[in-house]
Amino acid sequence: MARVVRGTPRTDLAIVDALAKLGSATVHEAQGRIGLLNHRLRPIFPAMIAGNALTCEVAPGDNWSIHVAVEQAKPGDILVVSPTSPCDDGYLGDLLAESLMAHGVRGLIIDAGVRDVATLTEMGFPVWSKCVSAQGTVKETPGSVQVPLQLANQMVFPGDVVVADLDGVCIVRRQDAAAVLASAQKREANETEKRARLASGELGLDIYAMREKLAAKGLVYEDYQE
Amino acid sequence: MARVVRGTPRTDLAIVDALAKLGSATVHEAQGRIGLLNHRLRPIFPAMIAGNALTCEVAPGDNWSIHVAVEQAKPGDILVVSPTSPCDDGYLGDLLAESLMAHGVRGLIIDAGVRDVATLTEMGFPVWSKCVSAQGTVKETPGSVQVPLQLANQMVFPGDVVVADLDGVCIVRRQDAAAVLASAQKREANETEKRARLASGELGLDIYAMREKLAAKGLVYEDYQE
Amino acid sequence: MARVVRGTPRTDLAIVDALAKLGSATVHEAQGRIGLLNHRLRPIFPAMIAGNALTCEVAPGDNWSIHVAVEQAKPGDILVVSPTSPCDDGYLGDLLAESLMAHGVRGLIIDAGVRDVATLTEMGFPVWSKCVSAQGTVKETPGSVQVPLQLANQMVFPGDVVVADLDGVCIVRRQDAAAVLASAQKREANETEKRARLASGELGLDIYAMREKLAAKGLVYEDYQE
Amino acid sequence: MARVVRGTPRTDLAIVDALAKLGSATVHEAQGRIGLLNHRLRPIFPAMIAGNALTCEVAPGDNWSIHVAVEQAKPGDILVVSPTSPCDDGYLGDLLAESLMAHGVRGLIIDAGVRDVATLTEMGFPVWSKCVSAQGTVKETPGSVQVPLQLANQMVFPGDVVVADLDGVCIVRRQDAAAVLASAQKREANETEKRARLASGELGLDIYAMREKLAAKGLVYEDYQE
Amino acid sequence: MARVVRGTPRTDLAIVDALAKLGSATVHEAQGRIGLLNHRLRPIFPAMIAGNALTCEVAPGDNWSIHVAVEQAKPGDILVVSPTSPCDDGYLGDLLAESLMAHGVRGLIIDAGVRDVATLTEMGFPVWSKCVSAQGTVKETPGSVQVPLQLANQMVFPGDVVVADLDGVCIVRRQDAAAVLASAQKREANETEKRARLASGELGLDIYAMREKLAAKGLVYEDYQE
Amino acid sequence: MARVVRGTPRTDLAIVDALAKLGSATVHEAQGRIGLLNHRLRPIFPAMIAGNALTCEVAPGDNWSIHVAVEQAKPGDILVVSPTSPCDDGYLGDLLAESLMAHGVRGLIIDAGVRDVATLTEMGFPVWSKCVSAQGTVKETPGSVQVPLQLANQMVFPGDVVVADLDGVCIVRRQDAAAVLASAQKREANETEKRARLASGELGLDIYAMREKLAAKGLVYEDYQE
Repeated sequence: MARVVRGTPRTDLAIVDALAKLGSATVHEAQGRIGLLNHRLRPIFPAMIAGNALTCEVAPGDNWSIHVAVEQAKPGDILVVSPTSPCDDGYLGDLLAESLMAHGVRGLIIDAGVRDVATLTEMGFPVWSKCVSAQGTVKETPGSVQVPLQLANQMVFPGDVVVADLDGVCIVRRQDAAAVLASAQKREANETEKRARLASGELGLDIYAMREKLAAKGLVYEDYQE
Repeated sequence: MARVVRGTPRTDLAIVDALAKLGSATVHEAQGRIGLLNHRLRPIFPAMIAGNALTCEVAPGDNWSIHVAVEQAKPGDILVVSPTSPCDDGYLGDLLAESLMAHGVRGLIIDAGVRDVATLTEMGFPVWSKCVSAQGTVKETPGSVQVPLQLANQMVFPGDVVVADLDGVCIVRRQDAAAVLASAQKREANETEKRARLASGELGLDIYAMREKLAAKGLVYEDYQE
Repeated sequence: MARVVRGTPRTDLAIVDALAKLGSATVHEAQGRIGLLNHRLRPIFPAMIAGNALTCEVAPGDNWSIHVAVEQAKPGDILVVSPTSPCDDGYLGDLLAESLMAHGVRGLIIDAGVRDVATLTEMGFPVWSKCVSAQGTVKETPGSVQVPLQLANQMVFPGDVVVADLDGVCIVRRQDAAAVLASAQKREANETEKRARLASGELGLDIYAMREKLAAKGLVYEDYQE
Repeated sequence: MARVVRGTPRTDLAIVDALAKLGSATVHEAQGRIGLLNHRLRPIFPAMIAGNALTCEVAPGDNWSIHVAVEQAKPGDILVVSPTSPCDDGYLGDLLAESLMAHGVRGLIIDAGVRDVATLTEMGFPVWSKCVSAQGTVKETPGSVQVPLQLANQMVFPGDVVVADLDGVCIVRRQDAAAVLASAQKREANETEKRARLASGELGLDIYAMREKLAAKGLVYEDYQE
Repeated sequence: MARVVRGTPRTDLAIVDALAKLGSATVHEAQGRIGLLNHRLRPIFPAMIAGNALTCEVAPGDNWSIHVAVEQAKPGDILVVSPTSPCDDGYLGDLLAESLMAHGVRGLIIDAGVRDVATLTEMGFPVWSKCVSAQGTVKETPGSVQVPLQLANQMVFPGDVVVADLDGVCIVRRQDAAAVLASAQKREANETEKRARLASGELGLDIYAMREKLAAKGLVYEDYQE
Repeated sequence: MARVVRGTPRTDLAIVDALAKLGSATVHEAQGRIGLLNHRLRPIFPAMIAGNALTCEVAPGDNWSIHVAVEQAKPGDILVVSPTSPCDDGYLGDLLAESLMAHGVRGLIIDAGVRDVATLTEMGFPVWSKCVSAQGTVKETPGSVQVPLQLANQMVFPGDVVVADLDGVCIVRRQDAAAVLASAQKREANETEKRARLASGELGLDIYAMREKLAAKGLVYEDYQE
């Protein structure tokens, strides 16, 4: 049943790299508030990256197919690992990270655990994981590589863009990446101007003309009484 | 139903600032072991602050009333945000933080999520939150500002003192703040002396005269046998 | 019922210190994938230590017996604290840490909370805990010291070796420590060589001769089709 | 600090009993979607009741003040128990339930544990609790009775109406109870008619005239393609 | 973006009904230990059903598209509801259940909450949900119906078979349903014979010839010593 | 490493059966409030039993050693299963239950999942588990039988008494069982008399002479003021 799909398409790295600079929160808003992985996935150190999803489905407590995935990696990929049933084991340590970096992989998203985090931090290999655990894994059951999979509340397809930073991880469909980038850049530009006005003390109530709408929704002001 | 209460009293900032130096654990003990928010609220970066509670009740997934709250802020306030039903969304990002800082707000306590944490860290705007999430919010339902509210196991009234550090967040009633400060300072002084004796190797068993009490409660000593 | 066992044996510090350099993940694998505490125990700052277990059973919300434990401490110990029923309180602060350090204790493992973490970090006293909480404890009920106890999914005996780092905490039985060390050192040496080959781009599939085994388990390769 | 407030007002039992028949979901909607306790509070057996809140604040692991509360009980009350810090102990067993029933108390809402649930079920004393636990409590620290308190995401005042059934627990302010009842009864009547139409196969899309609104929001229909 | 796909294929009800008799555990084993939803989904009352997946993606706190889904229902369907981000609200009550039953829907699988559970139980409308909550939902944002979606650790396609009982919920791909049924029936027959032998006191160690394998894996027997 | 210890001593069934009638809450109090398993272990149907602990350590996701345990069973035993690392799989179904019942085993305590719960309920085989899950297990790694183990916050030794009912599970050491029984029976007798007085409306405040103690601890009474 386990299979490896070769030659899956990827998103143009120019688009991917531009999305990396915008961050998960802006990209999430720009594409209509979809695509966010569950916030239980947290980074092991602060980082801000984007890459093409190299997907890898694993059996619980078994990291065999990560070795299989390395061979399918291309520079600019981010490995996305999903166990077929919930598991907290530490699927990846410094050896596999070394191997992934040697093949141009930019980081790891895993809905499970990771180990050797001190070394991974030294190596500068960023990981977003459900937990940190010294519990290693076995190599008994192969899983599938470069297939569509689900993890942490989203489906991910090979070649989707993964945008990950301190705020979390957002998935952008390959087909939508260019349009989402344009929309996110526009949003970003707009925010820079707004931020300057807010920094000067202007109120959002006035900038966004909220006062009437709030009154219409029934917001009332009253004075404090002991 | 949503309302904004203007002119709520605040605690004298001299008292507030003195409480900031003592920290949440000492203040909590000094006021009789009450007032601690649930430990699920964690700081996004190490900080140690105190301020007057600027309370803000929000609908789940809706941060509209935070804009309303900014206008009610005074220097020395800490924004305290409580959703009316449990929510993990990222209610506040860099724009609102900029606006709050421009009005003298010292930080945010929120029983929900926060986003843009890399930027908030650069800006030095401290936040204690339930989680970090890139999931933004909408602006459809106004909530109330400067009303008594509950969050994370405590009631908070506008103008209560919020003491927050790496250990957590403790609420001190405005009416009790001066007395709690006096008691906490006494406690602190006592601890400094004790700490020196313990550092020299003296045992707590002797310093606190515990041996007899422990024996009375039935503690026995025995020698190890294979 | 509470008792203190004096004169429990300890593991030779030469072995303990050698295990510290190998880390929890390697030690866990080397001893046959046993002995790991639940990953909910996390360090308050990055550290990598090993020591002899100084065990201490405490009542929920009561840290009295930690004072009793200090007197039993020897240089090279790590205090291991287990509440008799689940508790999230902050059992230990800077005073007790000062006292423990004065008696040569290297750190704390606690299946509960800890407080004063900013000060503990400054002092360099490492702690692995379930949570951080400003909630202090009382001194009403003595617990037992240097008795076998269970915490976070493992039994711990006095004098067992505790190996703790960023990846978690692993317990090695005193009787097994020398053999586990030998096995772990062998494993480590082997990993260094493998890591160099992986860094050069060689595939784990080839280094570990996995291709045939994977095929035998049914892994198939196919080409992507739109 | 602990105090008992005597003579707190209650809501008219005619209103309370009418609210009981409507249930928590309808009451919650009728009063504008507020007042619901966190859904972690679950009934130990199916029941549907309402009553006046008899509030009782307890120390963690200490049920002393429940004895104090019994004396303040009046027929038609529901005991609402909130620990000052989170606790899973079984605060109440068959003895206290017997005593509460003897004084006309209709049930218990507790943001903690309960025990003797087999006996409580036989006795017909309904309880909504966070968990079931055989862990009993001590009697060392008095708490307050008939004071405003917070539990499970809501503030509760003495004499508020507690509406509890299989769906959860909803709090109605004493001052709002009559108006909420009227609104909830209207809602209920409306639902009966709608339910008959839906049972006959009519679509909500048509009954509620949703088709145009859905199209305006961009919903599109397409045919399946392999 | 929201869309409804009409005319999606379904699995033959003869196969579906035969799978219902085998239950989720047997079906899960029979298809190679895949397809199980996370065990957090629990039934509101004991039931054992199977049906064709009628998929429905919903916004958090918004059940509008369930009305849309009713129109697409065919007898033998089971409604499968997945919120686009995690939510505990009670999406469905007795009115929608009435409507679904009128159109032949056999039950509901929802990775969120449900309400009116007393009435649903009386009506005999089975539900597997993450929680029970009186918190209703709004109708502001349409979601998609009969599209592939992910929930509770699995992807589900329209027309997949949903097998649900007291043990949980298992998804069988439409394309695999006939083969899985054959395999599961064989498995079931085999189990009946084994169960009789075990009931007579025969040991699994002997029936399955495990003794040698266990010895080969190193299992040793020893006699108890005080 | 895996081993089976034969001939471990058991507690006299007369004592065991007498403890069954008293229940976990009373036994827990009677032995000084120790021995309770974490309340996450819940019964699959209401039952009240006691038995001798037949201990069985299992690998995560592997139930092989339960077959080994059956051979060691004696009438009056309760199987106590602990995975060596946390696991939610359904370790036991109707076949193994049949086998255990054939050998006189009274029930199962497992800090993991169980499956086939509808059939187990029909068979009257009681189980206390962490969860229900259709996810079956493999048979690759033997574990140990009749060894001391830890689960759910307690150590359990072979032949300890397991007392389980709707309130939870309490462990009584074999050596203490007779004394605990005597103490629990005394406690029970005392409770019967108290319950009658409370049922007649007498207050616990008076029966237990609490008024003075409460006043001494600072409890004050005041009258309600609007």
